[in-house]
Amino acid sequence: MSTPSDHSANAERPTPERKEPAYLFTEKSVADKSEIARRFLETRARLNATVDKANNFLVKRIYNIDHNTYMEGVLPAKTKELMGLVASACLRCDDCIFYHAIQAYRLGVTRTEQEESLNVALVVGGSIVVPHLRRAYELLEEIYG
Amino acid sequence: MSTPSDHSANAERPTPERKEPAYLFTEKSVADKSEIARRFLETRARLNATVDKANNFLVKRIYNIDHNTYMEGVLPAKTKELMGLVASACLRCDDCIFYHAIQAYRLGVTRTEQEESLNVALVVGGSIVVPHLRRAYELLEEIYG
Amino acid sequence: MSTPSDHSANAERPTPERKEPAYLFTEKSVADKSEIARRFLETRARLNATVDKANNFLVKRIYNIDHNTYMEGVLPAKTKELMGLVASACLRCDDCIFYHAIQAYRLGVTRTEQEESLNVALVVGGSIVVPHLRRAYELLEEIYG
Amino acid sequence: MSTPSDHSANAERPTPERKEPAYLFTEKSVADKSEIARRFLETRARLNATVDKANNFLVKRIYNIDHNTYMEGVLPAKTKELMGLVASACLRCDDCIFYHAIQAYRLGVTRTEQEESLNVALVVGGSIVVPHLRRAYELLEEIYG
Amino acid sequence: MSTPSDHSANAERPTPERKEPAYLFTEKSVADKSEIARRFLETRARLNATVDKANNFLVKRIYNIDHNTYMEGVLPAKTKELMGLVASACLRCDDCIFYHAIQAYRLGVTRTEQEESLNVALVVGGSIVVPHLRRAYELLEEIYG
Amino acid sequence: MSTPSDHSANAERPTPERKEPAYLFTEKSVADKSEIARRFLETRARLNATVDKANNFLVKRIYNIDHNTYMEGVLPAKTKELMGLVASACLRCDDCIFYHAIQAYRLGVTRTEQEESLNVALVVGGSIVVPHLRRAYELLEEIYG
Repeated sequence: MSTPSDHSANAERPTPERKEPAYLFTEKSVADKSEIARRFLETRARLNATVDKANNFLVKRIYNIDHNTYMEGVLPAKTKELMGLVASACLRCDDCIFYHAIQAYRLGVTRTEQEESLNVALVVGGSIVVPHLRRAYELLEEIYG
Repeated sequence: MSTPSDHSANAERPTPERKEPAYLFTEKSVADKSEIARRFLETRARLNATVDKANNFLVKRIYNIDHNTYMEGVLPAKTKELMGLVASACLRCDDCIFYHAIQAYRLGVTRTEQEESLNVALVVGGSIVVPHLRRAYELLEEIYG
Repeated sequence: MSTPSDHSANAERPTPERKEPAYLFTEKSVADKSEIARRFLETRARLNATVDKANNFLVKRIYNIDHNTYMEGVLPAKTKELMGLVASACLRCDDCIFYHAIQAYRLGVTRTEQEESLNVALVVGGSIVVPHLRRAYELLEEIYG
Repeated sequence: MSTPSDHSANAERPTPERKEPAYLFTEKSVADKSEIARRFLETRARLNATVDKANNFLVKRIYNIDHNTYMEGVLPAKTKELMGLVASACLRCDDCIFYHAIQAYRLGVTRTEQEESLNVALVVGGSIVVPHLRRAYELLEEIYG
Repeated sequence: MSTPSDHSANAERPTPERKEPAYLFTEKSVADKSEIARRFLETRARLNATVDKANNFLVKRIYNIDHNTYMEGVLPAKTKELMGLVASACLRCDDCIFYHAIQAYRLGVTRTEQEESLNVALVVGGSIVVPHLRRAYELLEEIYG
Repeated sequence: MSTPSDHSANAERPTPERKEPAYLFTEKSVADKSEIARRFLETRARLNATVDKANNFLVKRIYNIDHNTYMEGVLPAKTKELMGLVASACLRCDDCIFYHAIQAYRLGVTRTEQEESLNVALVVGGSIVVPHLRRAYELLEEIYG
């Protein structure tokens, strides 16, 4: 879809999303505080090992792009993790909610900021989001409590 | 968005959704009949306690509006609980299906009325609803069986 | 999936959804009152003619089942059309909303009953439903106004 | 919706979806290889028995149509099971993913063909599909591994 | 759901979401720059007038809560409008995307910040978001171009 | 997520999705047969030019991955375009349906194969898919008629 000409024509415009954020906490320290986080992170790691082993080219590219999306950019990584949380909550995926809530915590986001983000998802997505909100609050209680 | 003028202009039009319905059965009696209901209601109560404790202003308002939606109005509370069931089934949320099926039962809705409501969700929502339908029937079997 | 034995075992249980409802108004009379309804019904009829012409066996069966779902049953046809409206609104399909709102009107459902049904969809589905609610209210204004 | 005339007018056009596919493997043999498959198939059979027992006319018709959709037609049953897999993955239903992945395996579909189908769902549906992809790969690992 | 006791127990915890943000631009100035924005804002105002006129109690409360969600809080209004944009894009609602993109612009959000937010929705929501992304970029081009 | 070791460990496994398919028809020839296709393709090209101009790094990578997904692989490009059609129909995106139906046609897929694919989406996704099915049939009528 893109042509050589648009590459040169736009060469001066920088691509902002790329720098790894600085985490204040390791995944392990979150797992130590929260049983929900621990179980989620372990299952995720175990299943990702199965996906890795399959070595599917396109899956690896999607994982890579997904990773890049939440780097420091013109928006702070914190904000983008909270946006990932909002997207996950309004699309109603518990695993995705847990992932982004943990990532946001690791970057130093406060509990109130997480709650305010979840409110956007709740208002946009409606009461069907409530069961996911409950489980999100249970996780927040464990990691911030 | 609304202006003072529309309040006065429409002041004569009553607001119908408000009266608490009369339940024939308590949550406890449903939990006594059905293990699925019991586990659902206990988990929900435990997690709602966590949400309550967080005391988030906007979440409390959403919970309050959600509660008001299913009051007696121009439509009977029974009908609105069944509509909540249809919405929950076509949006595919097991917790929400369980909640509204239990509420409808508590208001005296028959099993056949619940099934007929689920049929609307099944036809509108397609075979992707089937796994949720199966779990709904398992609950109905326990509470009506 | 079903076996001969369950047919006989359940033979005494009647199948409730089957009787055509009595419409108070024809589609034409709705189209005469509302330009939105008229355009919707005309486009729908024109496109359904294309679908009919293709004579696809499975599509015809789905259309047939869809039709049967909203017959008089243990629940009145009115209630089921309103459930179709709730499902359509929370799944956010304007055409489906228009269809069920018109059907409900033809069966004698009041505007307030339609609004109260839409409220269930709005609360369950969230603010993402609002643009569809606006268009639904525009139609309701034309057909009831 | 359909009229007598279109039946006769299109009578010469055959209806392609109808022939039962030839399975290479029984459900039992899949359950023997995979604990995930075994648990899924057992739960599904148990819950379907509850649904069958209820003998709901419309549910039975939907189950019947659903069954017919994946017969041999102008497209091979294999392809249609993989399409069912894609639809299930992008609509994010684990039970439906498990069902179609098992069916596809039983028809002789290779693991790489399953992965390539899941890629379509992943790209169309986005990273919200990833948790379901992980669980699908876990199943594939067990049944093909 | 909430009880008197939790109100007092949490009385010291402030409710952050409440202050009206300061807009740099009026809706009118956006409409003057962009034909897409102008048409959207006019249609929205016209339809909201119909909704207002109906004076539905519950709809008014939802509109009110929706408004409060995007106030200045522990998160800046800018960030919350961008979260509304992400939610709207991954739930695929053009009207909602337009609304939040315009609001974000009015608060001084840059185009690159809007694009980076849309990227989160695109990655989470997949290629099914692309048609909405295209229309969002067309709007951004008009209001920032 | 992936580590150097899994790259080498799986180096022998080929990556199948990569070869450009051979189109029997150009986009222009489809546009010449169908007014719906013509309008869709023109709008898409015009809006993609706006997206290209913005030169967003991550959007370009997503477009690239999206393109690669439908290449010849272990599954024929034809099959994958039809899978894209199924995904688009059950996620209810008209633009995406039009795109994949046109692509499938360009690769020599028959109308009956397109209909049978749409049936999978219709059965999985339910009657909420019907309005999109109608518009898909209108397009199919124009390009195959």
